[in-house]
Amino acid sequence: MKTFDIIPPNEVIRPDLARKIDNLAKPRGSLGRLEELALRVGLIQQSLNPALCSPENILFAGDHGLLAEGISPTPREVTWQQTLHFTQGTGTGIGFLCHQHGFHLRVVDAGVDYDFPSGCGVIDRKVRRGTSNCLYGPAMSTDELDRCLVSGAGVVDAAAADGCNVVSFGEMGAGNTSPSALWMHCLAGVPLPECIGAGSGLDDAGWQHKFEVLTRAAENFERDGWNGFDGTPAAARLAMARFGGFEMAMAVGGMLRAAELGMVILVDGFIMTACILAASRLHPAVLHYAIFAHVGDECGHRRLLGELGADPILSLGLRLGEGSGAVCAYPIVDSAVRMIGEMESFASSNVTKYF
Amino acid sequence: MKTFDIIPPNEVIRPDLARKIDNLAKPRGSLGRLEELALRVGLIQQSLNPALCSPENILFAGDHGLLAEGISPTPREVTWQQTLHFTQGTGTGIGFLCHQHGFHLRVVDAGVDYDFPSGCGVIDRKVRRGTSNCLYGPAMSTDELDRCLVSGAGVVDAAAADGCNVVSFGEMGAGNTSPSALWMHCLAGVPLPECIGAGSGLDDAGWQHKFEVLTRAAENFERDGWNGFDGTPAAARLAMARFGGFEMAMAVGGMLRAAELGMVILVDGFIMTACILAASRLHPAVLHYAIFAHVGDECGHRRLLGELGADPILSLGLRLGEGSGAVCAYPIVDSAVRMIGEMESFASSNVTKYF
Repeated sequence: MKTFDIIPPNEVIRPDLARKIDNLAKPRGSLGRLEELALRVGLIQQSLNPALCSPENILFAGDHGLLAEGISPTPREVTWQQTLHFTQGTGTGIGFLCHQHGFHLRVVDAGVDYDFPSGCGVIDRKVRRGTSNCLYGPAMSTDELDRCLVSGAGVVDAAAADGCNVVSFGEMGAGNTSPSALWMHCLAGVPLPECIGAGSGLDDAGWQHKFEVLTRAAENFERDGWNGFDGTPAAARLAMARFGGFEMAMAVGGMLRAAELGMVILVDGFIMTACILAASRLHPAVLHYAIFAHVGDECGHRRLLGELGADPILSLGLRLGEGSGAVCAYPIVDSAVRMIGEMESFASSNVTKYF
Repeated sequence: MKTFDIIPPNEVIRPDLARKIDNLAKPRGSLGRLEELALRVGLIQQSLNPALCSPENILFAGDHGLLAEGISPTPREVTWQQTLHFTQGTGTGIGFLCHQHGFHLRVVDAGVDYDFPSGCGVIDRKVRRGTSNCLYGPAMSTDELDRCLVSGAGVVDAAAADGCNVVSFGEMGAGNTSPSALWMHCLAGVPLPECIGAGSGLDDAGWQHKFEVLTRAAENFERDGWNGFDGTPAAARLAMARFGGFEMAMAVGGMLRAAELGMVILVDGFIMTACILAASRLHPAVLHYAIFAHVGDECGHRRLLGELGADPILSLGLRLGEGSGAVCAYPIVDSAVRMIGEMESFASSNVTKYF
C-alpha cells in the first residue's frame, strides 16, 4: 500500500514572514490576498525569499465505465481526441493558458480507451482502457488504485527533476464530474443532490437522470458494505476505488507526492477539488501545500470548498477542467511572490512609515 | 468647456464574435468570464481578432486641501515621496506589478505639494500644489477642472502614440478616498455613510471624524446651492470641481479620451470607480469601454459598482490604489483575448462537436 511522508511546514518562520510583509512600503494589509499568499508560499518553501520555478500543469486523462449509463452528453471519444490534441500545439483551452503563463504541460494517459501512437507526446501510464462501471461494482481494484498513486507520484518526480516547484493538476475524462460527486458524497458526507451539477452541460432531464444513476450507484455501494466514511485511510481507499477514475487517482498520487516534496499545489476546479479531498483523507497534511485557485459554476464545488475551509483566488465561471482555473490563478500567486521578493521596505525606500 | 466625442461600439459585429467564441473547441460557455471578456474587447476593438498592445498604467498624483481636517492617517508628504518613488525602479506596489505584466508606468504630477526635480521621470502637469480645502468651498475652479480634463486626455494621447490600446489608471493622493466618497454621494445619490470607508486604515474614531467632516462638507455644498445631481454635465462638473482632486479630474479626462480613441479601460479600485462614475456623468458612453478589474475592501466600492452595473473580475481585498487592482486583472483579460485568437475551433481540431 503506497503511503507518503508529508510533513506540515514548520511554523517557526511565520513571524519573520509576517514582519517582512508588514514592513513593505505600503499601508499594512493593503495588498490583501497577495499578502496572505506570500505568507503561504513562504511557509511551504520555508523561505523569506520564496520563488516559483518552472510551473507545470500535469493533465491526467482517463475513461469511465459509468459513462455507459448516460450521465454526460460528452461522447467517450472526446477523451482521446482532446488528450491527443493537448500535445499538438497550444490551440486547446489549457494549451493557450499554459503558453501565456509559461507552464509546461505534461499530458498523461492514465486509462484512456484508445491506443495513442508512440512518440505522440502522451505519457503512457495507462492502467487499462477505462474503469469498470461503478454502478455495479468497483471502478478499479485497490491494487489498481495503488498503481495510480505510484504513477501519479512518478510523474511529479519527473516534473521536480525538471526544476518545477509549483504544480497544478488537470484532467480530461468524459463523465468525470460523476465520480467526483460520489467521492464528495462518500468522503465528505455531503448529501448526494448537493454534490451533483450540470457537468459540462446537462439540461434538467439530464441532471435528473444523472442523479438517479448516482443514487443507485451509492445505494449499491452501501449494499456491498459501505457504512459511511469512518476517518480511516482504508475507508477512503475503498470509496476511491469504488468510483474513482484512473485520472483522478493518479492526480491524488501526484498531489501527495508534490506535498511530500514541498511543492506548491494549485488546485483547479470541482474534479481536482474532489481529488485533494481524497488526498487529504489519506494524508491530511497535504492541505498545507494546496492553494485553491478557482471556484467554478459546478453545483457542489462551492460546498466542497467550504468543507475544506478553502477560499479560492478566482471566481470566473470556468467549467472546462484541464487545469484551466489553476493556471489562470497563477499570475496572482506569482504577484504575491514578487511582492515579498521585489517590493521595497519603508526602510529602503525613504517613505515615511505611517502605519 | 472640454467635451469628448465618444461613440458606443457598433453592435453589428456582436453575432459574429459570439459565433466565433461558440465554435471554439470546448463546451459552450465553459470558459465563463473569459468568453464574456473576449466579446467585450472584440466589440471595443471592432475586431474578430482583438489584440492588447503596449499596456500602460497611468498614475496621476495630487494633494488635497481637505487633508488638513484630519480625514486620513496618511501624512501629506507621502504623496510626493511615493510619486517620486514610482519613477525609481520597480520596488513599489504598482512597480512590481507593472514589471510582472509588461505595463509601462507613466507617472503624472497633477497637483502635488512638492517641486519635483526636472528629469526625475515625473511628468509635470501640475495645476497647483494641492486643491483648496473643499470643506469651505470649491476644491478647484471649473477652469482648473477643464485644464485637468485636457491634461489627462493629453497623457492618454501620448500613450496611444506609443502604441498602447489598453490602459489602466491609478492614483496617489493622501486622503483621496474622501473626495471619492463625496463624488459618489453627489453623483450617484448614495447616502454619505454608505460612501465612507476606512481608507488606507482608519479606526472607528477616525471613521466617525471622517464622517462628520464629509457631512459638513456636503452640507456646505448644499448651502452654496447644490440641489442634488440633475443629470446634466453642468451639475456633474460643479460637484467634481467642488470636491475633486486634480489627480481624479485628470483621470476622468484620461478615461474619456481613452474611450474616444476606442481603447480598453481597466478600472481599478474605489477612487478610479468614482472617476469613471464622474466620467459617465459627462459622457455615459464611456462605460462601453470600461472593464472593471477589482472590488476592494473599501466600504462603498461594492455599492458604487452596483450603481454602475459592474461585476469586477477580481476580489483580492486590495486597498493600495495606484492601479494595482487593474494591473492584477490584466492577465485575465489577456487570457480572454488569447482564447479568441489562439484557441482552435471544433472544425480545425478534429474533436467531435458535442455541443
